Amino acid sequence: MSSKPSLPKGTRDILPQSMLQREYILKVVKEVFKKYGFQPIETPAMEKASTLTGKYGEEGDRLIFKVLPRGDKLKKQGATIVPDEALRYDLTVPFARFVVQHQNDIQFPFKRYQIQPVWRADRPQKGRYREFYQCDADVVGSRSLLLELDFVKIYDEVFKKLGIQASIKINNRKVLAGLAEFMQIENRIIDFTISLDKLDKVGVDGVLKDLDDKGFDEKVKDTFLKIVSVQNENFEARLKVMQDLLADSNIGKEGLDELGFVFKNTPKDIPLNLELTLARGLDYYTGSIFEVTADGVALGSIGGGGRYDDLTGIFGLKNLPGIGISFGLDRIQLVMEELNAFPEMTQEATKVLFINFGLEEALFSQQIADTLRQNNIKAEVYPDSSKIGKQMDYANKKSIQTVVLIGSAEMKTGALNVKNMVSGEQKEMTLDQLISALSLN
Amino acid sequence: MSSKPSLPKGTRDILPQSMLQREYILKVVKEVFKKYGFQPIETPAMEKASTLTGKYGEEGDRLIFKVLPRGDKLKKQGATIVPDEALRYDLTVPFARFVVQHQNDIQFPFKRYQIQPVWRADRPQKGRYREFYQCDADVVGSRSLLLELDFVKIYDEVFKKLGIQASIKINNRKVLAGLAEFMQIENRIIDFTISLDKLDKVGVDGVLKDLDDKGFDEKVKDTFLKIVSVQNENFEARLKVMQDLLADSNIGKEGLDELGFVFKNTPKDIPLNLELTLARGLDYYTGSIFEVTADGVALGSIGGGGRYDDLTGIFGLKNLPGIGISFGLDRIQLVMEELNAFPEMTQEATKVLFINFGLEEALFSQQIADTLRQNNIKAEVYPDSSKIGKQMDYANKKSIQTVVLIGSAEMKTGALNVKNMVSGEQKEMTLDQLISALSLN
Repeated sequence: MSSKPSLPKGTRDILPQSMLQREYILKVVKEVFKKYGFQPIETPAMEKASTLTGKYGEEGDRLIFKVLPRGDKLKKQGATIVPDEALRYDLTVPFARFVVQHQNDIQFPFKRYQIQPVWRADRPQKGRYREFYQCDADVVGSRSLLLELDFVKIYDEVFKKLGIQASIKINNRKVLAGLAEFMQIENRIIDFTISLDKLDKVGVDGVLKDLDDKGFDEKVKDTFLKIVSVQNENFEARLKVMQDLLADSNIGKEGLDELGFVFKNTPKDIPLNLELTLARGLDYYTGSIFEVTADGVALGSIGGGGRYDDLTGIFGLKNLPGIGISFGLDRIQLVMEELNAFPEMTQEATKVLFINFGLEEALFSQQIADTLRQNNIKAEVYPDSSKIGKQMDYANKKSIQTVVLIGSAEMKTGALNVKNMVSGEQKEMTLDQLISALSLN
Repeated sequence: MSSKPSLPKGTRDILPQSMLQREYILKVVKEVFKKYGFQPIETPAMEKASTLTGKYGEEGDRLIFKVLPRGDKLKKQGATIVPDEALRYDLTVPFARFVVQHQNDIQFPFKRYQIQPVWRADRPQKGRYREFYQCDADVVGSRSLLLELDFVKIYDEVFKKLGIQASIKINNRKVLAGLAEFMQIENRIIDFTISLDKLDKVGVDGVLKDLDDKGFDEKVKDTFLKIVSVQNENFEARLKVMQDLLADSNIGKEGLDELGFVFKNTPKDIPLNLELTLARGLDYYTGSIFEVTADGVALGSIGGGGRYDDLTGIFGLKNLPGIGISFGLDRIQLVMEELNAFPEMTQEATKVLFINFGLEEALFSQQIADTLRQNNIKAEVYPDSSKIGKQMDYANKKSIQTVVLIGSAEMKTGALNVKNMVSGEQKEMTLDQLISALSLN
């Protein structure tokens, strides 16, 4: 077997440069989660197939990866194999299973975050992989709208720290339900919002045509026009229009009250926008819904979430409401690359490479390197006494900015011959001078 | 479906307390890896089945979890299903595949670390799971013994930082090969070392009997007795005995020279021990081998590794030697629990809980909490105005040491009523006083 190896379709390796970027993003996210009282959990990659199937719709079921029982049983079972284990498809259903299973070991309201890969047998596309990380934070066990405020602040703080100018969009499932009541299209609300969603692409006339094609009546089209007419006005003006429309819908008014509360109590410097066309997973969420996009980058949503009335009912634990958000790690990484928002990763790279001029010199260099490491300075001694050009090339390719050359002369005097790989400058230093110089940056 | 959900056999959830312990261990390990120039990579959970099969022996092949193609294809294929994807069984084979695949994008000697779960369809036992993390660091592309020194130092630094008194055991595969030459049992070396390995359990007579039972001759038993007779002497004395035994074996002498080099150049404060009975995966390693145990804790090895001549040959890239070590995350966690070596995790927990006396009070508390968070203090406002006992209970169970009670009186005066949950002491503080008090610990 000596043909060049490859990976399964839709999977990928993460190389060091990309790993460091991802670690940087996740460090920021975790720190903010923890500041708001969230704690980490992990669940296993494999769940019982019965835990997952039937939770993601028919199409979802097809995309779940099934895992076979131990290989040696495969042949015996022949065509009757029914895999009873599967790879998690998201973090939400495993989390619901977790909450039910550990309900006596955790404190409610339970605030957890979870950052793990999930697997979907989707058709791979550019930027869409069969394995990708999800990064979720949820609170279960409370209906309090104070949590909406926390999540808006978490989104805001994370994206500000990452240097991404983000728009946090909010809507409320109850408002959409109220609109459906008003327009008397309770059964076709998804169809309606799909048309609404196209506004950015096809414009007002395009949406009107779409509504026509779908057979919606004048009342629907009028309502759409009313929503659009205030699209660019401030929150209060739009709220007023909606209050008029939904004056007779209890659920609609409840949704508007909730939106009003969130807007009133969100600090004014946070870019929260009411987006009446936002729908997100209608069959799942029951209250507030969120979506975040990066301004000036056409990459779709970099975060989303919402409130649900009943997360754990599917596993027999009723009346446990909650709210959660997620961060799209891959998209955030792409956005930050496009915006050049990553700080120089030099603090993660090796600071000093010691050139290897032979075994004795290298052993001497190792002792110096040990002292640097004791001062928390990342240091390497090139392991082989290869040609100096090759060693310098290694330093360049690993973005190591300082190279120390210790030959037999330097071993006698103890002076260090230090080369700055950026400026090309080379000078003699004592060990103490080197430590102070490297501790500065 | 309302029966209580459960997990597949041999898998488990990780709850917050355990997660924080694991994060603590991994943070120490990663920091040390980086100080020595190692960089992170990740590979996908699924590999092509052909990448994995045949690499772990017959038993290993049986323990590899196979993944089915998309569910809807299953029925059509019936009994002829040949899964062509599988879950990784360790990190070493995927790493070899990675090196070959990305050989033009990485710098040799390539130093990488990798911390990811692996899956094995083993019979589950106490402490043995079907999903567990491996934590590996390897260098490929160098035969330099300087790397042995680095790895010994890495082990030492990590375990010292974790507060574990560890014994780092070293042996060399070439010495074992030399012994086999000397005893003329080249084909039965594994059998011999298996007997040797039992010394701790069955004593000298037990091993002698075992060797007898296996039909080994007097020369083998004499050699064993010679090794044992110097078991407790210092390194030099044992080296001398081995040098006499292996005077006619080139490979044996080479191995002793390598051991001598590593001992001579390892700082004296590092507990490195020659363990001539150490064998570890004989068919895989070709030079130095390592194993680490925790003193005073009978939990087996908490780390291991060694040198190999040819990691990537199986994938067609010849002559790429390397050396690697791994840390046993689960075992290290168990050892630290047994030794009570974890620092108080209070720095990870929420510092302050604001009791919720009603919506207005809670909104006011949220503003105070925001100020604390801006000062990097982890703070929560209880989302519901539940009974105060329930809220206090939440603080206790989450190990939150400070509780702030803001009622309508405090809202007027701005004074904060602060309760220390450890001492039970309660006093009035200004916001500034609270911030300084919390920033101290």
